[in-house]
Amino acid sequence: MSSARTASAKTPARAPAQSVTGDPLLLTPGPLTTSKSVKEVMVHDWGSRDATFIAINTAVLEGLPKIIHGEADFVTVPMQGSGTFAVEAMLTSFVPRSAKCLVLVNGAYGLRAKKILDIAGRAAVVHETAEDTPPDLAEIEQILEADAAITHVFVVHCETTSGIRNPVEAVAALVKRHGRRLLIDAMSAFGALPLDAREVTFDAVAASSNKCIQGVPGLGFVLARASALEETKGNATTLVLDLHDQHQAISKTGQYRFTPPIHVIVAFHQALQEFWAEGGVAGRGERYADNARILIDGMARLGFETLLPAARQAPIIVTFRMPADERFAFQRFYDALKDRGYVIYPGKLTVAESFRIGCIGDLHAADMSAFVGVVAEVLDEMGVGLKTAA
Amino acid sequence: MSSARTASAKTPARAPAQSVTGDPLLLTPGPLTTSKSVKEVMVHDWGSRDATFIAINTAVLEGLPKIIHGEADFVTVPMQGSGTFAVEAMLTSFVPRSAKCLVLVNGAYGLRAKKILDIAGRAAVVHETAEDTPPDLAEIEQILEADAAITHVFVVHCETTSGIRNPVEAVAALVKRHGRRLLIDAMSAFGALPLDAREVTFDAVAASSNKCIQGVPGLGFVLARASALEETKGNATTLVLDLHDQHQAISKTGQYRFTPPIHVIVAFHQALQEFWAEGGVAGRGERYADNARILIDGMARLGFETLLPAARQAPIIVTFRMPADERFAFQRFYDALKDRGYVIYPGKLTVAESFRIGCIGDLHAADMSAFVGVVAEVLDEMGVGLKTAA
Repeated sequence: MSSARTASAKTPARAPAQSVTGDPLLLTPGPLTTSKSVKEVMVHDWGSRDATFIAINTAVLEGLPKIIHGEADFVTVPMQGSGTFAVEAMLTSFVPRSAKCLVLVNGAYGLRAKKILDIAGRAAVVHETAEDTPPDLAEIEQILEADAAITHVFVVHCETTSGIRNPVEAVAALVKRHGRRLLIDAMSAFGALPLDAREVTFDAVAASSNKCIQGVPGLGFVLARASALEETKGNATTLVLDLHDQHQAISKTGQYRFTPPIHVIVAFHQALQEFWAEGGVAGRGERYADNARILIDGMARLGFETLLPAARQAPIIVTFRMPADERFAFQRFYDALKDRGYVIYPGKLTVAESFRIGCIGDLHAADMSAFVGVVAEVLDEMGVGLKTAA
Repeated sequence: MSSARTASAKTPARAPAQSVTGDPLLLTPGPLTTSKSVKEVMVHDWGSRDATFIAINTAVLEGLPKIIHGEADFVTVPMQGSGTFAVEAMLTSFVPRSAKCLVLVNGAYGLRAKKILDIAGRAAVVHETAEDTPPDLAEIEQILEADAAITHVFVVHCETTSGIRNPVEAVAALVKRHGRRLLIDAMSAFGALPLDAREVTFDAVAASSNKCIQGVPGLGFVLARASALEETKGNATTLVLDLHDQHQAISKTGQYRFTPPIHVIVAFHQALQEFWAEGGVAGRGERYADNARILIDGMARLGFETLLPAARQAPIIVTFRMPADERFAFQRFYDALKDRGYVIYPGKLTVAESFRIGCIGDLHAADMSAFVGVVAEVLDEMGVGLKTAA
């Protein structure tokens, strides 16, 4: 890091960082840097209805509930597309047309769920808090007590907009106490933040292949309580996003109703093996927590402030406030980082002026330290004053 | 071929066939055997909102309309998922809730379109012909004349169920004459059977990455007449399948609304380059026609009959009637072919007892000849009498 800071602005101190496949490192909320072995398994062809692929797919579907300790009660329903396809499938399959859903909003993904319900003609109400503030449990309780028509509650585990970790366990306990049903969007948290179905009650949780399991994008999935999924027959208002129908077909034949993204699924299978080899949620969560700590501490030394206080920060993606220094031009910052081999999220989703740096993917402590060094170098090049408090 | 026929049933005459990546050859309706170079480009990571990927994606989207000579009037709207996701997106985005669609059915994909419209609450009527029979133009004309409420007509270009080539040009002319709008499912035909938007009038055509362009599965797309797409605002009844919204977002930023299947798209980009290098629709169609001819002639020499007469057969996938000989057990036939390196479609979609062999993908004349030789060998092993008419 110090070598980076003392380097001349015009002569980068090192060759650009890159993954073993020669690509920039992705410090984004996903799609993210994957291991070479995950990508290399895609250099093959499989028949989508042949036993070889069916066996791989079955292993993926059967293995996923273990991540939430849901082997006894949960089944995996995959959904081609992206995480949002899985979320829309979950909401429109699990929330009947006659039902009503309370959506907890503190960012873009909560708002998106509300939009999905509105378009699908499902009644929905919102409990919204600021983007740096978790939902208010007392207020949720009041809403549930006041409106008996509310059947479902929707919560985002890690709201990727800011990186805030929402208290799903407390929300779940409240929802259970009031006899309502919980649906979780765990997209960027799944596999890194613990979610234990033996202790936390919910009907379904949606996630995707290209976040903390470190696969490539193209597949969403919903882990559904089997008994709850059974009740969803006829709820869906589309063919392709009907989780009940999708599950029925796969249960009978092992085959998807419609062509699956085979290569994505085989890569996901490999990614799951690497996930378990790293120690599952505990091991992966620990590495990401280290990544986040190195990033936050390093950026703090350079004068950057996080949007969130430490207690609310998930170790997934970190939102930094845009520096006040007018010499800091974000596009130049982005481009200079990319020239040096680091791709960050190219903009903001928060209301606050900010930018985001991801901690997930095949990134390790040395990558995060090196990144902070490069940020220092780029600030120097831009003439932005560094706070070198250390 | 003759060497295969004289080989002992217990000692295969050759090592199993395989692609250069060591995989069985896929003689299926897709996903299919792709070139090694198409698969190898996936061994990288890209940021989904970074300029490097956006440039690749833009090249894909801008290039696709050229395949139908639609550069002047058509835009590409991609849809994550599979071909059916694109078809559902096309139907629910282009057919307003107040409209009515005539669906031409002679196989599973026409029926699927009807089902999509029913679930989405769109009025739909069907003109159905037998699976080996193209739609009846005179009857369609009567239906359109009798029912002024019909606003749209849906037709499948090559009905993959049987492999029949439907007369989209004649249907399009009829639909145009009656002032209605045409939507085409060209899935298994796109890129191999000509479709010229300068001469054939339609509002939209749906296809996917993993058929005749020879990419990997995970992406569908709709080529939409820009003026017709503009009118579709607010029609969609889902968020993710809304083509108008998808197009708006991509037009503004080059970025998808929701995470794209990056690796699938980069592979598709490579596949498109190889498609044009082979001579586009003319070159690819010619190779597939050769493949189909070698297959049909070779299988005929072994006593197999096609479901369709030659004039109705598209050079995409060929349906053969199940042999009457009771020693012919399909599962054994399938497994023996797979042991020898050829994966065929494991079952039938037609009403008639049959099986299907695909002619598309990175398959060449020598592959088809060798396949016919292997079929002879397997028949011999099963003790099925061969008709060696030649």
